Amino acid sequence: MDLSGRDSNRAALAELKGSLGNSRVETSEENLFFESIDHSRYFFRPEAAVIIGDPSDVGTVLKLANKYGVCVSVRGRGTGCSGGALPQKGGWVLDLSGLGEIKINASTWVAEVGAGVITADIDKAAGEYGLFYPPDPSSHLYCSIGGNIACNAGGLRAAKYGVTRDYVLALEGYLPSGEFVRFGRPLRKFSVGLNLRDLWIGSEGLLGVITKAFLKLARRPEKTRTYLFFPPNSKAAFRCVSAILRARVMPSILEFMDSQSCACAKKYCPEASFADGSTVLLAELDGSEAQIDSAEAEMLSAAANYAPPPEIAKTSADAQKLWAIRRKCSQSMYEIADSKLNQDIVLPSDRAEEFFDYFNSIGRDNNVATPTFGHAADGNYHIHAMYFGSNPKSAAAARFVMDKAVAKCVSLGGAVSGEHGIGILKSRYMSLQHSPAEIEAMRAVKRALDPNNILNSGKVLEPFNLDGIYPLKGVRLPWDK
Amino acid sequence: MDLSGRDSNRAALAELKGSLGNSRVETSEENLFFESIDHSRYFFRPEAAVIIGDPSDVGTVLKLANKYGVCVSVRGRGTGCSGGALPQKGGWVLDLSGLGEIKINASTWVAEVGAGVITADIDKAAGEYGLFYPPDPSSHLYCSIGGNIACNAGGLRAAKYGVTRDYVLALEGYLPSGEFVRFGRPLRKFSVGLNLRDLWIGSEGLLGVITKAFLKLARRPEKTRTYLFFPPNSKAAFRCVSAILRARVMPSILEFMDSQSCACAKKYCPEASFADGSTVLLAELDGSEAQIDSAEAEMLSAAANYAPPPEIAKTSADAQKLWAIRRKCSQSMYEIADSKLNQDIVLPSDRAEEFFDYFNSIGRDNNVATPTFGHAADGNYHIHAMYFGSNPKSAAAARFVMDKAVAKCVSLGGAVSGEHGIGILKSRYMSLQHSPAEIEAMRAVKRALDPNNILNSGKVLEPFNLDGIYPLKGVRLPWDK
Repeated sequence: MDLSGRDSNRAALAELKGSLGNSRVETSEENLFFESIDHSRYFFRPEAAVIIGDPSDVGTVLKLANKYGVCVSVRGRGTGCSGGALPQKGGWVLDLSGLGEIKINASTWVAEVGAGVITADIDKAAGEYGLFYPPDPSSHLYCSIGGNIACNAGGLRAAKYGVTRDYVLALEGYLPSGEFVRFGRPLRKFSVGLNLRDLWIGSEGLLGVITKAFLKLARRPEKTRTYLFFPPNSKAAFRCVSAILRARVMPSILEFMDSQSCACAKKYCPEASFADGSTVLLAELDGSEAQIDSAEAEMLSAAANYAPPPEIAKTSADAQKLWAIRRKCSQSMYEIADSKLNQDIVLPSDRAEEFFDYFNSIGRDNNVATPTFGHAADGNYHIHAMYFGSNPKSAAAARFVMDKAVAKCVSLGGAVSGEHGIGILKSRYMSLQHSPAEIEAMRAVKRALDPNNILNSGKVLEPFNLDGIYPLKGVRLPWDK
Repeated sequence: MDLSGRDSNRAALAELKGSLGNSRVETSEENLFFESIDHSRYFFRPEAAVIIGDPSDVGTVLKLANKYGVCVSVRGRGTGCSGGALPQKGGWVLDLSGLGEIKINASTWVAEVGAGVITADIDKAAGEYGLFYPPDPSSHLYCSIGGNIACNAGGLRAAKYGVTRDYVLALEGYLPSGEFVRFGRPLRKFSVGLNLRDLWIGSEGLLGVITKAFLKLARRPEKTRTYLFFPPNSKAAFRCVSAILRARVMPSILEFMDSQSCACAKKYCPEASFADGSTVLLAELDGSEAQIDSAEAEMLSAAANYAPPPEIAKTSADAQKLWAIRRKCSQSMYEIADSKLNQDIVLPSDRAEEFFDYFNSIGRDNNVATPTFGHAADGNYHIHAMYFGSNPKSAAAARFVMDKAVAKCVSLGGAVSGEHGIGILKSRYMSLQHSPAEIEAMRAVKRALDPNNILNSGKVLEPFNLDGIYPLKGVRLPWDK
């Protein structure tokens, strides 16, 4: 077919509309709004969105996209932070949020889930059989498992229980060519051929479209107990975390909030009784009563040199009170300024002190507030640079501080992203993290599986220029509190 | 350079010898013997072996191999069962067994190990800090971690603790082009770019050469307790396993031996007191005393309908007595016939009964003994077809039975290999397990990273014709008992 530009697009769209089974095509401005934006608030208008009702239509869409050279972006619920779901080149959005089936096999401890299933619903369904799906990204009430797999999402329990990848036994879906494939099997061991399952996991939609996953479940811990520590400062908090790990205690959760985050959150927690300038460590132990008692003794002994004795919540209701401060911290930062840059860096545990000395100091030097919270046991910190969206100098200062911070993190042996992925917003950091040979190997794999470069093209492996592009303001997304 | 055949080989070898640092080239018949064979006993003579003393020489070897079009096979300790290390096309063997450095970081729970480190030594080094490296392939006293990573080795503790892949944080090594790369980082979270780390794991040396790994460690369980059950037959054993898992008990070990295996092993265990025709389940629980007590009560209650109360060993010395029968089973099978075919299939737990009814019956019909042992909690069974090496009819019958068994396993949703990998000996089963689209995707990735097809070429992704090729007999390898 020898068409180009608008005619080609029209022909492609017409053929698309006539080829689908139980899926529908949206092209109206109004219906495309939520397909054009994600949690990052960056906004790019696609030509059309295909709301998938039947997995086999994914293959049809991809075959047509190859035929007409249309870029396809893949989307779950749009909760991603790095712009991985955004149609920054226009083209078609493949919306998988309708693939919502869950089946639990209690004999094999396996969950079979559609790509659009909400993450928290998997754990809920597993819980009915006394089983457990541990990965719990902060967005777990809204995000979909397909998106979690695409960026290898982590969450609060990752140091003890691992990340999404650790629970994926098998995937079903479509290669960029539109061919159906299964990688892995719903079995606990599988060593048959190249492992394209794990290549897909974390590939942010560049190498294929996942329509179904088989997930490993674990035994549900009987109980949890929550602890709120107030170390005097960040340095003491990091040392406390190291002491706990050196004592070989692995809390199911160990969250850190620096004094800037605490100060913001405190304004929304009237019940909070701690002093200004405080730092927080929020820990959870899980297991049987006896296991928790024994781990608690070890943890409190290890922590005693670095923080006063913690508040302890034995019931879930009491724990919710201790959690209030942590839950408020992300949104409450807008007390400081109306916009933020954030990164989910990972630091080697013995370099956190050095990193945050640098980060907070360069923030102060540039008049940029730098609140941080994160998952201290695995070194995955959410660092922020706050700015005023209407003030280009303030935005530029925040960008400067963040670029310096990311470079410092990598120079200390850290990672540019622990759980959000690269998408378009972090692609300019890829060359900090990876050598030219590493990036070229990734590009070679991309070319091998997607020779026409139709799937999520321009993301992750190609630097995206953010100059002059800013997030939309004043948009309320379904998960905004 | 325009050379061909022998002249080219000579020129390549001369340049190789002149280019290496702290590595050496072997070409004598005598020194090449152990580079020509592996645990499978198949034997292929390479042109030369490079005993790597310095990781950077790996890059040099690969660059020369590309220049001269020489095939390179990668080898650790040669304990593989599928011929993945064999130089079946001649060329050069890259022997990594000398890369033996181990460092333990007790603060971050990470082991940094050279590819040639023996697996059991990692756990031993971790144990000095109260830490634990759980993967324990049966060959753990001899095999190297590089080989474990290459075939994603499992072992006895995999159902509870996972396989090698679950412990690999980062890899260093060389692309087929000879360029140095690092995939992943020694961090507990990492979502930066395509995940070539996990693509390397299980890729059996097709996509690169791993010289160093960073492994995640766990907290060492305080105690273990061992249980020997004698269910009346295999059917009762499989139901017992299912009942234990449904009760949400996950033993650290749960080994199965069928009556054929038991009968062989019994001859070497004079202390064994069980009846002829018995079947065995060997279980281990681990954790604190209290955790074990509680799991024991649940396990014994779940097992009570399927087996008499087990023998219980509380001390390690007592456990060794219970283990004797399991340790003898692989070698004692030679009581039946002097040669064996074996496969490490994986079955969905609810299909084991159906599979073994079929397997044992087709064995009887063809006069082939079919002893089985394996890792029951993850469905990974080592099935055998015994034959007389000097009798071509007996060998053909064993091959027929095994081919039928593998096809049946896949038709029940199982896997051709759970932990050994494909190598050359199982490559003809790839098309049973994977669709043409899946295999073509794997081949496209191979071509992308190794365009000259120099690294382990002819393995895994291309069927290897075994007709008329048999293992060497009478060879003693270092790990033979």
